[in-house]
Amino acid sequence: MTKREGFVVVLSGPSGAGKSTIAQAVVSRVPGLVFSVSATTRPPRPGEVHGRDYLFCTPEAFARMVDAGELTEWTSYCGHSYGTPGDELARLLAQGNDVVLDIDTNGAGQVRRKVTGAVLVFVVPPSLLDLERRIRARGCASDDELTTRLTQARIELAAARNYDYAVVNDDVAQAIEAVASIIRAERCRTARLAGDLVPAAEGTETVGHS
Amino acid sequence: MTKREGFVVVLSGPSGAGKSTIAQAVVSRVPGLVFSVSATTRPPRPGEVHGRDYLFCTPEAFARMVDAGELTEWTSYCGHSYGTPGDELARLLAQGNDVVLDIDTNGAGQVRRKVTGAVLVFVVPPSLLDLERRIRARGCASDDELTTRLTQARIELAAARNYDYAVVNDDVAQAIEAVASIIRAERCRTARLAGDLVPAAEGTETVGHS
Repeated sequence: MTKREGFVVVLSGPSGAGKSTIAQAVVSRVPGLVFSVSATTRPPRPGEVHGRDYLFCTPEAFARMVDAGELTEWTSYCGHSYGTPGDELARLLAQGNDVVLDIDTNGAGQVRRKVTGAVLVFVVPPSLLDLERRIRARGCASDDELTTRLTQARIELAAARNYDYAVVNDDVAQAIEAVASIIRAERCRTARLAGDLVPAAEGTETVGHS
Repeated sequence: MTKREGFVVVLSGPSGAGKSTIAQAVVSRVPGLVFSVSATTRPPRPGEVHGRDYLFCTPEAFARMVDAGELTEWTSYCGHSYGTPGDELARLLAQGNDVVLDIDTNGAGQVRRKVTGAVLVFVVPPSLLDLERRIRARGCASDDELTTRLTQARIELAAARNYDYAVVNDDVAQAIEAVASIIRAERCRTARLAGDLVPAAEGTETVGHS
């Protein structure tokens, strides 16, 4: 079989739904699945490494990338900007990797419009009360900011129907397994396999080797 | 969440592609996934039990079911007829089970046309030579019959593109995992979840219990 080009998997949903935890676990578990490293204007948190966790850049450098159309998707959030560099994404896909993007619903909409064959997964928090607890545990600044983020979360939940899949994160192990299953399943979609099917069974090159 | 109605998963492909082995393994592994027992005019093989493996019936009884429109799909194969009783299928789905049908491509086409939301999986044998070996191992009668079945297999392979998914059975453990993943993924499709998403996150009944 020829090596297929990879596809983009978007994990999105309200902040605090647990999508980053799920994304990291799935990437470590599913071979051929990788992260695309995002650019951001947010300062590094302790332990975060430039080029591994994010491409940390100045607001000016970020604005230049936006103006040059170099970002496949980007958004601003909590006073900082985040985006996915298109050249790196294209390089990973051409190598046959499937690429996870852990992005907000605004960015997910941009991917839907721009990236053919992208798979959009909405991660649903078990309840808004639980969401509030998770956001507090991450220490996102003031009560005002918390209120803003919860309101935003309610708005984002309404967007779930624009996604291909929804995974309720009431048990993180089950949610990880569900997302891994979605990726394995999408790799078997006949629409993605194109000409790869019939040669495997009819091609004379395979007959005689078994 | 309200209990959703189940969906039909068709496993099909050329005879000898290994779909029965895969179907049995997946049913034993995935909770909430069951077989629908087919009706057949074929005599029982050693160890087969009426009502568990098949509903064994006379050609006359089978013809009456066909005439009465009681079979969701049916086909004739190797001189015998096989079909899926619609009332049993409806009962299993209404209970919230997902139901596997291990049927030929002719039957799969009937399911596609009649059963809304059915998921069609094509099981691809690794090579036609390997297919020949598997058919011989099952002891299907004469060389003439073998030739007929191999020709039929080649015709059926061309049908793969009408399916939602294709799983190449060159490693049975991987093929089983792929089909299990397809079923888990389909359970997360937003199109199937309908109104179940937003209440889980916004409903007041869940807030206060976490």
